[in-house]
Amino acid sequence: VLDPLKRLIGVVSLRDLMAAEDDDLVQNVMVKEAITVFQDTDQEEVAKILETYDLLALPVVDQNRRLLGIVTFDDIIDVIREEQTEDIYKMSAVSASRATYLESSVFALMGRRIPWLIILLLAATITTNVIAGYRHVLEAAVVLAFFIPIVTGTGGNSGTQSATLMIRGLATGELRFQDVWRIVGKEVMVGLMIGVCLGILTVLRAMVLPPEVTFNEALAVGTAMCFVVIVATLVGALAPLIISRLGLDPTVMAGPLMATLIDVSGLTIYFETAKLLLKVM
Amino acid sequence: VLDPLKRLIGVVSLRDLMAAEDDDLVQNVMVKEAITVFQDTDQEEVAKILETYDLLALPVVDQNRRLLGIVTFDDIIDVIREEQTEDIYKMSAVSASRATYLESSVFALMGRRIPWLIILLLAATITTNVIAGYRHVLEAAVVLAFFIPIVTGTGGNSGTQSATLMIRGLATGELRFQDVWRIVGKEVMVGLMIGVCLGILTVLRAMVLPPEVTFNEALAVGTAMCFVVIVATLVGALAPLIISRLGLDPTVMAGPLMATLIDVSGLTIYFETAKLLLKVM
Repeated sequence: VLDPLKRLIGVVSLRDLMAAEDDDLVQNVMVKEAITVFQDTDQEEVAKILETYDLLALPVVDQNRRLLGIVTFDDIIDVIREEQTEDIYKMSAVSASRATYLESSVFALMGRRIPWLIILLLAATITTNVIAGYRHVLEAAVVLAFFIPIVTGTGGNSGTQSATLMIRGLATGELRFQDVWRIVGKEVMVGLMIGVCLGILTVLRAMVLPPEVTFNEALAVGTAMCFVVIVATLVGALAPLIISRLGLDPTVMAGPLMATLIDVSGLTIYFETAKLLLKVM
Repeated sequence: VLDPLKRLIGVVSLRDLMAAEDDDLVQNVMVKEAITVFQDTDQEEVAKILETYDLLALPVVDQNRRLLGIVTFDDIIDVIREEQTEDIYKMSAVSASRATYLESSVFALMGRRIPWLIILLLAATITTNVIAGYRHVLEAAVVLAFFIPIVTGTGGNSGTQSATLMIRGLATGELRFQDVWRIVGKEVMVGLMIGVCLGILTVLRAMVLPPEVTFNEALAVGTAMCFVVIVATLVGALAPLIISRLGLDPTVMAGPLMATLIDVSGLTIYFETAKLLLKVM
């Protein structure tokens, strides 16, 4: 329902119209305080409003409440699907694209992937240098090299789990930066328990399965694993919270930043523990 | 519209009802071939049908077409959100849960994460043994250990990118197993191009940035990187296709399987290339 200046003054649903008496004025049937969106409202925001109020359609107005159009629930379902695909791509370091896979040229597919791979490769340079710093430890006990992928891998997996829970929590609006201390408390507890379990499992695994290692070597790997999981869990939880606090998108930024931080801190913990337990100077 | 046995014989929209003449029979206004779903239809499937036909609601019937209820678009929006969260969790190896993060106890959060971490940890045992098999190569050139995280990391990232494109393609119905040869062709091309670029970048990076390495060592890392990316891209693309062909869920299975396959093949390529170029027997 519009006034003579095409400004929105209310909405009438088909259902209300049918229920109305034949001689009722539209004025008496319409809902006056209609929920509206602006033409520059983010589509994800529009989706949230439509969902919250279970509406079939939303009027789009300009600053003067002049009606510009409507968005209907079927447009919104498409938006939700699109945003979903975009989020999943971002988490896997693939740039989003409107073109489908089969339609995309080999060059287009390459362009969506290679920038992220280069960023991640350059970030991994730091990890290489951390290991290089422990060259003498590795020379004294080359066995330590065998467990590098387990340390970085488990660290990465624990960190990704925490980060995913945070990113979803932030996306759905359940978590906010204000909850940071509660979250840190929870993540430290969860990390501690998982770390102890995986640490014990790693020692057992190193003693039982090949390659053959000494008890002290197994203990070094297990102890390191325990600390790595605790640190990775915390980093994984804090990175998205801090990034979103800075007004950046945690889905894009969390990956490379987190992977590097976790690899660097994980390997430092690993080699320091090994130095201590294996008495390498 | 039901017959005397409560079987669905048609549907009438509010819009058609309003447009109808006052003396029309429902029979003449209704849509006879109504799209229906069964009570055991998967909710994701129901969402797809509602989306495809842009319907407001879908009747749910039993085997005899007796009406059991209706599903409306606002239920479906909730379903799409839920499935989205579930998919993202699965890809990050977190079990899904109806409880929100802040509501969940520390033990509940631990239970959602630790099973996956243990599976991934045990799978990584194979990787440890692959490296252990090249102990003499590592002893001859400890420098090779510095680049282990770069090799497994870049392999993992390329593989995840391919796998994500496949998993989304399969989920939206764009890709099917029949397209496997077209996909393999594309992925080999994309992998080759990305592999060559990253290989050259790795050699340059190894020559320019610390730690100091010989040209042959840099060449070994760069060459290996090139092959690792090609193999990882192919494994990443094929794993979800094969898993879904076997009737399993690629979102859950692709992660651990792929990570292990890529680490194992990547490190084997890496050490074999190094053996050849560094002339270690």
